[in-house]
Amino acid sequence: MMLSREAQADLLALLGPERAFFDDATRTLYASDETPRSCTPEAVLFPARHDDVAAMVALANRHRFALVARGAGSGNLGGAVPVPGGVVVSFECMNRILEFDPANRLMVVETGVVTDDIDALAASAGLMYAPDPGSGAYSRIGGNLATNAAGPRCVKYGATRDHVLGLRAVAGDGRELKVGSRTSKYATAYDLSRLLVGSEGTLALITEATLRLVPAPETVATLRVCYADNAAACAAVVRIMARPVVPCALEFMDSRSIEAIREYGGAEGLPEGTRAVLMVEADGDHDDVPRQIAALEQALAGAGLLEIQSGFAAADIKRLWTARKSLSLAVKNIAPLKINEDVVVPVARLASLVNAIDALGHHHRVPIVSFGHAGNGNLHVNLMVHGDDADEMARARACRDALVEAVLGLGGSLSGEHGIGSEKRHFVDRELDAGTLAMMRDVKRLFDPNGILNPGKKLPDET
Amino acid sequence: MMLSREAQADLLALLGPERAFFDDATRTLYASDETPRSCTPEAVLFPARHDDVAAMVALANRHRFALVARGAGSGNLGGAVPVPGGVVVSFECMNRILEFDPANRLMVVETGVVTDDIDALAASAGLMYAPDPGSGAYSRIGGNLATNAAGPRCVKYGATRDHVLGLRAVAGDGRELKVGSRTSKYATAYDLSRLLVGSEGTLALITEATLRLVPAPETVATLRVCYADNAAACAAVVRIMARPVVPCALEFMDSRSIEAIREYGGAEGLPEGTRAVLMVEADGDHDDVPRQIAALEQALAGAGLLEIQSGFAAADIKRLWTARKSLSLAVKNIAPLKINEDVVVPVARLASLVNAIDALGHHHRVPIVSFGHAGNGNLHVNLMVHGDDADEMARARACRDALVEAVLGLGGSLSGEHGIGSEKRHFVDRELDAGTLAMMRDVKRLFDPNGILNPGKKLPDET
Repeated sequence: MMLSREAQADLLALLGPERAFFDDATRTLYASDETPRSCTPEAVLFPARHDDVAAMVALANRHRFALVARGAGSGNLGGAVPVPGGVVVSFECMNRILEFDPANRLMVVETGVVTDDIDALAASAGLMYAPDPGSGAYSRIGGNLATNAAGPRCVKYGATRDHVLGLRAVAGDGRELKVGSRTSKYATAYDLSRLLVGSEGTLALITEATLRLVPAPETVATLRVCYADNAAACAAVVRIMARPVVPCALEFMDSRSIEAIREYGGAEGLPEGTRAVLMVEADGDHDDVPRQIAALEQALAGAGLLEIQSGFAAADIKRLWTARKSLSLAVKNIAPLKINEDVVVPVARLASLVNAIDALGHHHRVPIVSFGHAGNGNLHVNLMVHGDDADEMARARACRDALVEAVLGLGGSLSGEHGIGSEKRHFVDRELDAGTLAMMRDVKRLFDPNGILNPGKKLPDET
Repeated sequence: MMLSREAQADLLALLGPERAFFDDATRTLYASDETPRSCTPEAVLFPARHDDVAAMVALANRHRFALVARGAGSGNLGGAVPVPGGVVVSFECMNRILEFDPANRLMVVETGVVTDDIDALAASAGLMYAPDPGSGAYSRIGGNLATNAAGPRCVKYGATRDHVLGLRAVAGDGRELKVGSRTSKYATAYDLSRLLVGSEGTLALITEATLRLVPAPETVATLRVCYADNAAACAAVVRIMARPVVPCALEFMDSRSIEAIREYGGAEGLPEGTRAVLMVEADGDHDDVPRQIAALEQALAGAGLLEIQSGFAAADIKRLWTARKSLSLAVKNIAPLKINEDVVVPVARLASLVNAIDALGHHHRVPIVSFGHAGNGNLHVNLMVHGDDADEMARARACRDALVEAVLGLGGSLSGEHGIGSEKRHFVDRELDAGTLAMMRDVKRLFDPNGILNPGKKLPDET
């Protein structure tokens, strides 16, 4: 599928030169996301409203070119990287908040709105948009919807899919869809909203979303908990998730993460012998948070515990997060390239996963740094490599392959919150059986019969 | 579609005479649900396991007969009532709990398990299956999944769909599906689990479900709150839903409900002048529930409040619920037939809905009793009629029609928790636009190309 001269002319006529770009500079800017891979699109389009998107999809079907939806390009699996001949649809200009209805705890937004802006507006009325991906300061809600993004708070509040009431979208076949409702309960139609969430732009282009808001907690408190080894920290995670108080963050850093932080000089204040850390938060009413923190401290205590520090005031909380915040930069010292596997297992299997990762790292001689949303059994397993070291890259590929087998063997899944994109799709048929995968391919064909929406993503190639 | 002699023979060969019934007595028993409408099936089948269901679907496609999934038959919209020539598939014998995994807060069940049995087993490990439909003591989880059933607790915890991690099912085309995961986060495949939930047996027969469990609250406390009129009670509901403490029940009884209870003799203890009642519950930690109750009492106070009574001990809670529990029997005194419209509006529109209902009842001269899950804006609007009074029935139909218009005008939806079945499907195209409805019909055709699964339900007839 290439972009013909006629298609270019039609796109220009539709959007005008302010919103349809064919120049090298712009196209190069939109050739990549956070994946170390790129492909220059034939054009970059900036729709301003739903109707623009509907018209673009009609043109894509008429001229047969591929449309690749893009939010902020902060995905790390190639979901927003075009295939050759593809056209990028950036939702950056569709960034209006169409309606904020605090009494009904909902907000209607265009899908180019920045995630944190939604939460900030909600906060102005004592509400919260709960999903908090790490990229929230710049990610667009459309990208969050595409991948079913999540973040630390999701251990208590659920992921993006759990906060969508309804969607407006244009299916790949050009049909305009309005699905879901504005109500907090709904049993009328087939639930196409939640089907489109997490479909990574392969079924429809989502133009507007009606999001569910929750009451904002009055306050948050933080615990930084240091353990002598990974196993002790994992056991504490399982103890917490077996008790009634659900923290609003339960984040884990493994021993290799702590090493990296130490080498980077960010370990100030961590007691000697610390080889794993949990960051635990509780939120709620001023009067209730101390009770939650006490219950969490009780669950966190056990063999291998070295220290618990608590923070209730903003300055203390910030100090406790210092080591964790230094981690991103710290890991860059290990190796320039990070292959981030966002795997998830049932939470009680967390220790088994961490053990398996350790063994795989040793066996394949690849440094692996693991951290993430332990309360959901969701770890970011980072294989640290040098892209120009062919031998190391081969070992990393073998290690990654074995990691996927280990995760599936533990009853887990390929992705907890990043999605599949182009980078993980060759693993998908290891997790899904053939009949189920065939049905998903049929769903794709139903919504997008000409295959114009984000080809080469989410589903594996047909063999 | 009729059941041929060959099909009968094949079904008998598949299931044996213990699980395939063709006699009049059995067929009559399975001709109806809670709807005043019935249709005798050609056969009643009792599969014992997933493989039986897969084989039945294959036979239904080969011989072209309709399969109507049935749990306990407690639906009230005809969802489990066959069309002529249809065969009922009762899941009563598929009632095994396949796995209970408290550490991972999940349970894997066959879909014939009784809803409350799931909650009871969860409770044995300090967990809870949160959705609590009124029929939970006898409804089967498969029926709950079919309709996306809910109940009082859903104002805090969400409905059935929010508690499904994964499903095993047989699509109408015979394909066996295994969708979703065993993890609390998931971003790998298209979300077919939540598509099947609420599809009322029209896309696939769900055979097994992996259900999400939540920590069981230590304790529950109850408030019975009496108001001088409907408007005062509705205003209190909106005040509560604008504040951070979310009750685990927020149930409303309108003035006609209170009248009926009075006439029935169940109003003992309600202060004079009571014309609307809220039942409000809070759950959580022993130490925290009193704080929640105090916050709720504060929100409940306002113009028209007559009395708040609180109950913390089991006996007090039971006493406070007496009036509410008598309501079902009380309304039967008004008229023998109850047309139950399970409508839902954004919660801040509740007062407008109650006003509209009042006006419609007067205009069409139909007694209407409304009560239900006010915190979700979800009311059960009961038109009380005599089935043999043709004039009254005609007025009730007109009234119901106008009610649907009013609900949609308020941004609401046809069904909050009961689904559509056969009884409401002619309203569906008033809520959904043509393109969206067409896509849903295509989804139906994809999953069930021969139309063997629950024909005549959920979607309106094509015109």
